[in-house]
Formats: sequence, structure tokens, C-alpha cells
Amino acid sequence: MNIGILGLGTVGGGVVNVLAKNQAEIMRRTGVQIQVTHAAVRDINQPRICPTKGIEFTQAPFEIVNNDSIDIVLELMGGTTLAKELVKTAIKNGKHVITANKALIATHGNELLALAKDNNTHLLFEAAVAGGIPILKSLEQGLSANQIEMVAGIINGTGNFILTEMRDKGRDFADVLKEAQELGYAEADPTFDVEGIDAAHKLAILAAIAFGCELQFDKVSTQGISQISGEDVAFATELGYSIKHLGIAKKLNGKIQMRVHPTLIPKTRLLANVDGVMNAVLIKGNAVGPTLYYGAGAGAEATASAVIADLVDVIKDTLSHNVLGWQSFEAIPYQNQDDIESIFYLRLLATDKPGVLADITAIFANHNISVEAVVQKQIDAQDNAHIAIITNQVKTSNINAVVAAIQKHDSIQEEVKIIHVETLD
Amino acid sequence: MNIGILGLGTVGGGVVNVLAKNQAEIMRRTGVQIQVTHAAVRDINQPRICPTKGIEFTQAPFEIVNNDSIDIVLELMGGTTLAKELVKTAIKNGKHVITANKALIATHGNELLALAKDNNTHLLFEAAVAGGIPILKSLEQGLSANQIEMVAGIINGTGNFILTEMRDKGRDFADVLKEAQELGYAEADPTFDVEGIDAAHKLAILAAIAFGCELQFDKVSTQGISQISGEDVAFATELGYSIKHLGIAKKLNGKIQMRVHPTLIPKTRLLANVDGVMNAVLIKGNAVGPTLYYGAGAGAEATASAVIADLVDVIKDTLSHNVLGWQSFEAIPYQNQDDIESIFYLRLLATDKPGVLADITAIFANHNISVEAVVQKQIDAQDNAHIAIITNQVKTSNINAVVAAIQKHDSIQEEVKIIHVETLD
Repeated sequence: MNIGILGLGTVGGGVVNVLAKNQAEIMRRTGVQIQVTHAAVRDINQPRICPTKGIEFTQAPFEIVNNDSIDIVLELMGGTTLAKELVKTAIKNGKHVITANKALIATHGNELLALAKDNNTHLLFEAAVAGGIPILKSLEQGLSANQIEMVAGIINGTGNFILTEMRDKGRDFADVLKEAQELGYAEADPTFDVEGIDAAHKLAILAAIAFGCELQFDKVSTQGISQISGEDVAFATELGYSIKHLGIAKKLNGKIQMRVHPTLIPKTRLLANVDGVMNAVLIKGNAVGPTLYYGAGAGAEATASAVIADLVDVIKDTLSHNVLGWQSFEAIPYQNQDDIESIFYLRLLATDKPGVLADITAIFANHNISVEAVVQKQIDAQDNAHIAIITNQVKTSNINAVVAAIQKHDSIQEEVKIIHVETLD
Repeated sequence: MNIGILGLGTVGGGVVNVLAKNQAEIMRRTGVQIQVTHAAVRDINQPRICPTKGIEFTQAPFEIVNNDSIDIVLELMGGTTLAKELVKTAIKNGKHVITANKALIATHGNELLALAKDNNTHLLFEAAVAGGIPILKSLEQGLSANQIEMVAGIINGTGNFILTEMRDKGRDFADVLKEAQELGYAEADPTFDVEGIDAAHKLAILAAIAFGCELQFDKVSTQGISQISGEDVAFATELGYSIKHLGIAKKLNGKIQMRVHPTLIPKTRLLANVDGVMNAVLIKGNAVGPTLYYGAGAGAEATASAVIADLVDVIKDTLSHNVLGWQSFEAIPYQNQDDIESIFYLRLLATDKPGVLADITAIFANHNISVEAVVQKQIDAQDNAHIAIITNQVKTSNINAVVAAIQKHDSIQEEVKIIHVETLD
């Protein structure tokens, strides 16, 4: 089996390094010697983080995907334009493709997977979701007896690092983001990470594999963490929660929900204790109950671990030609956003006048929403009351209505903050 | 594919139930309708927890394994004598076998796996370790790029339930054990659970798959939790640890360690927060770093989830005929018990005389062992000092020597308690 790599940067270099250092062990497992024979790079003269002996270099990536001697292509260059054309060409030429490119799969996966099926080749992407955690294989194989009811994951390490620092050190968002960029966790343009787009890509992939339906990235409702303030973090702690940026996919009463948003989860849950850049995914199956998978969501060698696991699967030739682990898809309707039920955390800044809390709680009562917990913090210099409220489980439309009503109360000083709460039980 | 079940109790009944309720979903995944056609039971007239329509019953289990119309045998009866003969006969007759029987695999797995390989059939046992958690598949497939350095797991739910209750409610061992028996978690004879034999069976299986070597159950050093007192639990909490009953397999400098024992682990680790009857396994790979897998370690439907996942793998015919996921084994030497290095917790009961602590710490210094932490608790009515000590990392032979020396000190009132500490970092 000859292997060609598109892109020999951090991930590509990591793959070559891990293949080199674990050669004997991988050989014992597979019975096959794996050797990268070709690599396409942007600049052939740039220094590499891995040994390059035995690898033929080119700056023309189409040479790789059109090369008859290559059996497997590793797409590790990123992007969705050139990468897509290269993957399509590789598949049409009968090559198996392994990629770590979540954006490519989330946005063009349906087309590419169909093409792979038509050409009797494999398109695998374990590394695209939660880095080194073998989460897609677990869903496809280990949990194959289950109807999956929920997937809830911390699937963006940068966001989790920022929220962990905010909670543990009382730092604010902008300050930690700057450090994350300096540490190389966050890109120069951090939008994909902090606004939840990266997590939404991964969630769309997880949901399709979990439920056996088409990839529908455009259906994911996405909210980032840039609006989380130190005050929210402190209130959450006081109320017994930790704020995590979760990707949640649920199948409830025959309908699917997919949403990425900051979420208060009870401190005692394992997910609440997944800190720093680590990732974890909680899966609920109707037979197995809750299971959780934890590990590094990024990094050269952790990602390489997942890429090579796919490679071993292809080389051992033990895969059936299905799509996302399914023989057939179901068209499962999406839950209307307004009908999604959740517990909510609301934060209010109100003038501290007698009767304000009574007025506000009356508004909740009028909307038939219970106040499960309320904390009012010390009044600031401006004589304002800082109030955090946890509701019971209500429809999104209902919470929006109550917030609109509260917002009109003349004591309210700023926009009411709304954050989802998930008990994960 | 016709499927025969040996044993239609909790697990067997769970398998039939899950197959029934998830029929459509499993069909969409596999493209195959799975139907249990035959069952061997001890008493044909006993009531069943599952639908029995379409299942032909017998009280003669050899009829199942000798029936030419049956392709796959599920051994869910337990025991290692009759079960072994039945599995051997099934394999010799060319049938695939799936079992949840950890004792059978741990003690006779080498022979049975070799027989399966010779007969070109599969012998699978995902359900034998950590119930519904797809831990064997993750090791064999998801982490196939790695050299595994460590496996550390909470792999006995009963033991974990007892330790959790002792910690959270200050109850003592015997009291919680009695409740666990009443709840059906622990057997009437709880030896296998609380003395670590069940965990040792599972650890032997995990280690063989992790390292690619023969199953060697007799090499596992095993210590139970019956000696853990409320005082140890309280001291551990005070020192920032939680006591868990861990199965630990490490490959260090080309040698393997396998041990089951109570272990102090830092409270901040995810494993320390795995409570009640839940199981979790931490795996360290040299590429992926630490990953953790959490879920229900027992229960009818969780175990059925793992049995059926194996069944799907066999039916999809996507497995290569290897042994424990390896093409070839390595004979890896075992670490001499005396040479195993660990941090230790020691608990002493000493007469409270001036100079006792000075004497004891001098004995540590003489053995070149550092005292990393020490707590001395309020003196009891007998004027005794209760002392807990955490050491640095030392050889087992060295800790045994220091304990022997301390034991001779005339202030020491009872046997010094020794418990392993693992930082898991």
C-alpha cells in the first residue's frame, strides 16, 4: 500500500513521526509495514518536523491524487476548496481517503461520501472530531446495538481552555483569549473556535453518525462563548454549576436538535470536570445508558493517532462500504428551535428598589415558569442588584417571551443574559 | 445467520430484549435482521424477562453447539467448566462465539483463542470487560496507532459502590457490602468482587489486548478492599485523595506490571470522580496521551449492548482473524513485584509519647524515603496517635523494609497499613 500525504505541517508531520516511532507495534497489529511514499507541500524547501527519508515531495498536489501507484491519500492540508477538489479526484481515481478536515466533511461530506460509495473506496475522518478520542469508531461499532438519544460534548479545546481559566483564575475572556493565541491554541482569527463554528462542524458529523441521517451543518444552531462574563462564571459556581461550551445533539420524539452553546452543567458531572484543552463526549444509548469518552482534542500526535487508526482499518481491509456506519439513512425532521425545551439561567441587572424582585418573579409566574434557584449579589456602587435565576424546564419560545416581558420592566438596566442549563442526567 | 444462546438469564434476556426494541435501528446499521433462534436454559419452565416467540428452547446445551443450522453462539451462562467445553465444541464446529464470561477468557482464553484461529472462527468478548463500555474495541481499533503505556481502570462496580458509600456517607465496609448484596450488586459470596478477583480477570484481558501478549491471569497481583477502614477513607480525603479499587497494567522499560489494589488517587482526576457502580478505564498511549472511557460496567441492557456490538461485527463480516487484535504476540517479561515503584500511603497507630514522630521520620530517612505529606489526627481515649504518611515514589522492596523497621518500634500499636498511591499524570 502506497500512501500519499497532502500537507506535511503539524498533523502531517505528526503522522509521519508516529508511524516512525511505533512502526514495530503497528506492524505487529496489522501485519503490514506502513510507509508514506509521497507528500505534497506548499513549499518544498521549508524545514519539516518529521523524517522525510523515502518520501517523494511535490508542490503539485494533483500529482498525488492522480498518481496510479498511490492507494491511500491522507488529506491533512485543511480548507474546503482545493481540498475538496483533491479529495474528489482521489476518490474518482479509486483511492481511499483519510482526512482530519472537519469543515470539509461537515459542509461537503454528503457529496463526498456518496462519491466514495459509488467508487467503492473508503472516506474516513476519525481525526476530524475530538482529535485522538476514537469517538466515531465507538459510535459506529462499540455502540451499534443502541438507539442514540443524546450526544453532548466539549469538542473545542480552545474554548474549554478559556472557560477553565475564567473559572479557576477569575480572568476575563479577552485576557485568556490573548494567552491562548500566544500558546498556539487559538488561531490569529479565533472566530471558528470562540464563536462555535468549529464545534458545530464536529457536532454535525457526530449527529449524522449517531442518528443515521445526512450531514446537515446548516441546521446547527450556534452560539459562542465571547459573551460569557466573569460575573456569569461566578454566579454559575455559586449555584453549583460549571459553564462549558457544549455541542448537543438530541433525538427526542422522532425529532433532532443540534445546538452549540455555553451551558451550565452541575459541577458533579464528569463533563464539568473536563478542563483545559481536553475534550470529552457524553453519549446516551437506549441500551448502554450514558458513556463518556475523554482525551486530547488536538495536537500533532493525538490527531495522528486517529488518522493512523483509520489507516490501519483501511489496510486491514476490515471495513464494509457503508456511509457513516449505516446501510441506509433516515430523513429525521428537525425540532423547531422555539419548541426546544431546556432549563435556563438568566442574569439581570436591575435598579435596587423595593418590590423589584417581587415584580420580576411575578412575571415568571405569569408565564407559568418556576424559579428553581435565585441568587442576588451585593449591590454595586450604582445601587444596582445583580440577579441570577435558574428556571425549570421550559420551551425556548416561553423563555423568550418571559425575557421580553422582563426587559420592559423599568428597573432593568441592561439586556437580560440567557444561558442554557443541562443537567445531563 | 442463526443465533443460539447458552443461558437466558439477566444477560441473555437483556440481549433478546435489546434486539427486539432496537431491531429497526440495528437493521439500518447492518442491513441484516438478527434473530435468536435457539436457547439452552437450565429449566425450560422458568419465567423469562424477554419475549421468547420464535426461540426454540432446550435443556441440553450441547444440542446448540452441535446444531448445524446455528452460525453464532452466545455463551451467557457463566462458569468455566461446562462453558469451556461448550465454547470449544462450538468453535470446533466452525461457529463464531461471543461471550460475556471474563473468568472463562482470563483463565482459558489462550487455548480458546488459538482454537478459534485454527478453525477460522471469531471468539469475541467485549462484554467481559467494563460491561457496556466499548473498551476492547477502542484498544484494538481506535488506539491501534499507539504503544500503550498504561491501563488503569475502575472495573468492578460493586467495589466502587462500596468505596463511594464509605467516602460520601462515612459508612463502614461491612454495612455497605450488606446493602450491595440486598440491592443485587454483590453476589451472596462477594469474594470475587471485593477481593479483586473479578477485576483481575478483566485486567488480564485488558493487558493482553493493550500490549499484545498472552493472557496471564496468574501474574496479576491482587488485593481487595475489605481491609479499607473508614479511617483510611477519612485520611485520604483530608490529604486530597479518593480511594478507588483500580486494576493497573503498565509497560515500563520493556516489562509489564499487572496489579489490582485499593489506590489513593488525587481528587481532581476524572477517575476519582467515577462513583457508585459506574466503571471507567484510563488508557495512556504514546501518541494519543491519556484517554478515558466511562459507562455502566454491569446490568442486563448495558452488557447486552456490548454483546450485540460483537454480534454486529461478526454479521457485517468486517473482522480480520487475528488474536486479541494482534497479528503476532510478543513475550514481554513481568516486572518483579519487589522492583515495582509506587508512591505509598502508610497508616500507623502509635502511642503518643514525645519523640515518636521524630523516631519514625528518622526511620524513613534511614531508608532514603521522603515523607511528602503527613497528617496526625486527634488522640483517641487510649492516648494513641493516628498518623497517615504519603511517601515519594519508591521501590516496593524499600517500602516493605521501612514498614518492617517501623513495625518494630515499641510505640507501634497495630500492623502498619500500606496502600498504593497513583497520581495518574
